[in-house]
Formats: sequence, C-alpha cells, structure tokens
Amino acid sequence: MTPPNKKQPPGATIGILGGGQLGRMLAIAAAQLGFRCNVFSSEENAPAYDVAASYHIADYSDHSALYKFAQETDVVTYEFENVPVSTLEYLETQHKCVFPSSAALKIIQDRLLEKTFITDLDIPVAPFRNVENISDLQKAAKELGLPAVLKTRRFGYDGKGQVKLNATTPLDIAYEKIGHQPAILEALIPFEKELSIIALRDQKGNFASYDVSENVHKNQILSTSTVPADVPEAINESARHIAQRIADKFQYVGAFAVELFYMGQAHTTPLMVNEIAPRVHNTGHWTLNACTVSQFENHIRAIAGWPLASTERHSDAVMTNLIGMDFETWLDWAQQKNTSLHLYRKTEIRPGRKMGHVTTLKNKEE
Amino acid sequence: MTPPNKKQPPGATIGILGGGQLGRMLAIAAAQLGFRCNVFSSEENAPAYDVAASYHIADYSDHSALYKFAQETDVVTYEFENVPVSTLEYLETQHKCVFPSSAALKIIQDRLLEKTFITDLDIPVAPFRNVENISDLQKAAKELGLPAVLKTRRFGYDGKGQVKLNATTPLDIAYEKIGHQPAILEALIPFEKELSIIALRDQKGNFASYDVSENVHKNQILSTSTVPADVPEAINESARHIAQRIADKFQYVGAFAVELFYMGQAHTTPLMVNEIAPRVHNTGHWTLNACTVSQFENHIRAIAGWPLASTERHSDAVMTNLIGMDFETWLDWAQQKNTSLHLYRKTEIRPGRKMGHVTTLKNKEE
Repeated sequence: MTPPNKKQPPGATIGILGGGQLGRMLAIAAAQLGFRCNVFSSEENAPAYDVAASYHIADYSDHSALYKFAQETDVVTYEFENVPVSTLEYLETQHKCVFPSSAALKIIQDRLLEKTFITDLDIPVAPFRNVENISDLQKAAKELGLPAVLKTRRFGYDGKGQVKLNATTPLDIAYEKIGHQPAILEALIPFEKELSIIALRDQKGNFASYDVSENVHKNQILSTSTVPADVPEAINESARHIAQRIADKFQYVGAFAVELFYMGQAHTTPLMVNEIAPRVHNTGHWTLNACTVSQFENHIRAIAGWPLASTERHSDAVMTNLIGMDFETWLDWAQQKNTSLHLYRKTEIRPGRKMGHVTTLKNKEE
Repeated sequence: MTPPNKKQPPGATIGILGGGQLGRMLAIAAAQLGFRCNVFSSEENAPAYDVAASYHIADYSDHSALYKFAQETDVVTYEFENVPVSTLEYLETQHKCVFPSSAALKIIQDRLLEKTFITDLDIPVAPFRNVENISDLQKAAKELGLPAVLKTRRFGYDGKGQVKLNATTPLDIAYEKIGHQPAILEALIPFEKELSIIALRDQKGNFASYDVSENVHKNQILSTSTVPADVPEAINESARHIAQRIADKFQYVGAFAVELFYMGQAHTTPLMVNEIAPRVHNTGHWTLNACTVSQFENHIRAIAGWPLASTERHSDAVMTNLIGMDFETWLDWAQQKNTSLHLYRKTEIRPGRKMGHVTTLKNKEE
C-alpha cells in the first residue's frame, strides 16, 4: 500500500489527523519546510487549525469527509495514538501513504500486543498477564504478586484506564473501575528513574535518535523532562539500541517515543520498556529549543520521504509542562532568562489539561 | 491614539499587514505564544495565509475590508515598510493599536526624512543631498563628487529605485531611470564591511538588541549574514548605542534593523548608518536558530505589550539566503549537518526572489 520513499517536494500538502498541540507543532514545523498542512479533527476550534492552510471538522469514521481530505492531501500522519486504525486503513485504500502505518499502530494501540511485540524482541518489560475476566485477574494477581497495576488494553493515556492494586484492593471493584474492559495486569516494578528516548526512522530505513531525557511525572502526567538524563552513558546506548530494534521490526516511518524505566546500575536488567508512543512526544518538546532540528521537523522529514536531519543537541535543557492552572504563570515564565514559552491556544483551562510548556536552556556540560 | 502598554493575553488576535515570508515567520512566532493571527494582504495565495487563523485579501486602501480586519483584531503590525501610511492611520482611527506607529513609518519610508532624522541625532550617515529636479542633481553631483548613488526617496528595496553614477554617467539619463521621482544623491563611501543590528523596544521603553551581524550582498540582495561579525567589540557597543538612540527618539515599539557601514578602525567615524528597516529583517533570520527567542517572537512580544525576552545567542551562525534558482538546492541543504532549512512556500521561482534561507550553527567561540 505504501510505496517506499516517495519524496514530497516543498509545496506538497501534509495531512494531519488530530488537531491538538502536537498537531499544532507539527504543522508549524511543516510550514517551516515549505509544506502546506491540512488538519482533520472531530473537535471544533482545535489548536492546530490556526496554523494549518486548511482543515476539516468531522468524525474519524466519516468516509465522505475522509475522502475529501485524502483528495487534498499528499501524505498523511497523525498526532495521537488513539486515532481509529480503520481511519488509517480507509485512507490507505484511497492510495494515500499513511505514516506510521496502520499495521504498527494496530499493535501499539493494544497493550497486550505491544508488550508481546517488545518481549518477542528480547527487550525487557515489566512482567504482565492478559486479563479477560475476573478469574484471569485473580490468577494474574497471584502469579505476579501485589502491588501491581491493572491497565485497559486500549485507549489509556496520562494515567487514564489504570488502577493500582495492592494486597487489600478488592479485585472485583478494581475490575469494575476499568469498566470490565480487556486489560493486562502489570507487576509494579521499583524503578529509580523514568527515562524516554525520541527516535526516528526514515523511508529508506535510516535511524536517528535524540538524547535520552529524564522525566518526572506528577499525578501520572508528565511534569518535567531534563536533558541530559543523569544516567551512565551505557544506558543511553542501550536505549538507542532498544529504539532501533523496535523501529526496524515495525519498518517504522516517523518519530516515536520509547518510555523506559531505569532500575539502577546494580539491577540485572537496568532498563525496561514501559510503553511506545507512535508519534512525536511530550518528552521531546525540548528538541524545539535545544537542537538545530526538532522532533517535529524530523517527523515531517521522515513522512515526506526526506532525509532525517541531525539530532544533535546544542544545549542542556529542562522542559516544564504547564498543566491546568499552571497556565496562569505564563507571564512569570515569559520573563525567565533563556526560557522559551510555548502556549497551545486552548480556549478552556481544565485540571490535568496540557496548556503549554516552557524550555529553559543552559550551556552544555562537557 | 496608542494607549501605552496594553497587554494582549494569550488567545488574542494579532493583525499582520503583508503576507510574505516575514509575515509567515511572525505568524508562526505568534502562534507559539498562543496568539491567533489575522493576515491582511493584497496578494492572492500569500505565504503567510497558510499559518494564519484567518486572512483578508484586499487592497490596502480598501476601508471596508480594513474595517472588518480591525474588528477581528486586537493589535496590528506590518511586515513590510512600504505599507501605505494611510492604511495605518485608518486603523488608528478605528482605535486599533498599530506598532510600529504611523509616525515612525512616515519618516522611515522617506530616505530624505530618514537621513535627516538620523543626522539630527548626531549619528553619522553618508553625505547626501535632496534631489527634486535635474538641476538639484547636477548641483549635488558637483558638491558630493562622483561616484555616488541616486536613490528614490520612497519605495526602494533590494537595490530597486537606485542608480549608481560615475564621472561619465549622463545625469539626465540616470534621473530618467528612476522615473524623475523625488530622490536623494548619496556619496559612495568606501566601506570595509556591511553590518546590521536587530533591536527592539517594548511598550514600557525597554530596549534590547541582538548581536551585530556581518552581511554580504550579491546583486544588491542579501546573500549571507554571519554572527559574530568580525569587528572589534567597541563596534558592537557603538551599534547598540546608535540603535537605542533611534528607538528612543521614535518612541518605537517592535523590532527594527539598522544597516550600517563599517569603515575600518582607522577611520574617524568607523560606523555610518545606511538605513533603518521598521520591521523584522532578513539579517536577523539567524536568531530563529541561534537564540532562545528569535527576532520574530520578540517583535510579537513588544507589540503585544509583553516584556522582551533575552536576546542572547547560544551559538555562532551563518545564514544564507536561497534566492531564485538557489531554491533548487533545498535537498542538498536539508542534508547539511547543524543546518536548519526554512522554505517560504512561494508558488513561483523568480530571479531575485527570496525563496527561503538556511542557518548553519556552530559552537560559540569564546
């Protein structure tokens, strides 16, 4: 369905499914390279519309709207992993290149398939069990031990669709909480740090990755990402190696993030994969300011059949998310030295909503 | 007409007169801060429309279109100095803040007023004479000596509206060439380098400037800008001082460029002002990649009543324009290390037309 390495010339139109801040930053990066963007989203007044040459507001299952979108668009990508696979498949039947492919997304959207895929590559993940009913859950809890985390197989993000179980949690109530959906139970592993790596693969199979960042979450939502991560260089190397094996196995095209647990050097498996995000990622926003070419531009390059640009970092950086009411601190951040403020033009502040981010640069430690 | 320091909150709409690449880069910078942009241009299919939340295509003298534009817009700026002053004046009567003000633009649009303004500040410029007719021109040529340059007072850029005169040039033919327009004759001064400085003044009167760049022109069009400029530190200081006096005298709000001739250290007046551009400037495009905050964002901050951000440079840089057929080298540039490619999505390649630029970074020499 996807011809290899079709190069889109400047002036071509990039279709983006999804209109949130990631779509907005992708559209800006694409514009900088001379592309037009056409955004498709079910949301009224989505942030990405402001910076797109055109947009469609329709349901992701609306084939007549998707048909029109496809006619106006040279290549398609998406900014969120919960886009229906059937939407991508429909666009593929319209002879549109869609990157990353529906085949990769189908696996990554499902925690069970995703973790099985990673395990099959001999890459460590936290021990997990498939949960299709309450008796599976009881059995899994016994085998893995508690505490553990019950996670829906599909449509979870920012801690949604997850329940932590400890020895006193009634399992039936926990299962009820996630709506009796197909799930996995995952052992809770005592990690030392959360890391992530943003990686890219182009249409010719070339691989590149940015430096590993060290991430801090608050209320299960990313709070800060710091580069360089304070880990041994061998860990950076391992992370790159893990990302490359994943990219190659998927024949992946575009940017993706691998979230990792760092268990400490004493541990026999110092790195475990938490999950894969098949898109540009919040833990890579620092690349907008600390690198010559950001994750957003490199993603656009990959899907457009262009060569990847160097992922080198010219500065150390700390990225801080502005979540919910944090938004009201924008003017303070605007006055910080060496700090770049990014606001997403969301019309309503809601608790837990990502409203913007800031990146503070400092000279690289060498 | 212009209330001092009205702070536009994120979500406000920035009106931009002009839809070229400068408007496009301003709109992107504004979007990054959470603003919407509304572009007004007489051109069909202008590059800035792609990244604007809305736009109007109409003549700059079309008051009904300008009225509508004003109603939708919280503050107005412009991306080219040849916007009619009457357009700004009309918008000011609609109680819109316009930055930079029509008063400043009126002077800068006219080389005679501009050079008189600079001279009145005791800042050196190349000797010049007012030319209103052929006998003025004959007298001026005698007084200043030849070679010299005859320049129309208004609407010149990139060498347009200019004729070089030498001892054998028939003066009547030269005057004919510029259409017998009001003009000045300017002594041709043997400078060592062309420099420029991008400076900013906010609504509270705070001043900031970027490092001086060293510029090379080919066929009277900017070819490269390099930072740092290879000049003594005292020259940087003088340039900053010149820019600040100009900004303060105009009570200027926004970004502007001062183009300078460097005569060499031995010269009694080592720096002379060539001209002022009342807008973001091609010689400041390197700030997009070599600084935490670019000239475009700082201009938006100034006109929106925000504090200016620091203008520090984290890297050395060379910016190269892609003019006309240079555009066809885009793929080569896309493969250069530490190089950021910017293409303007112009639909037609024309000789002398600015199609894009590239900036190559290297570690700062310290």
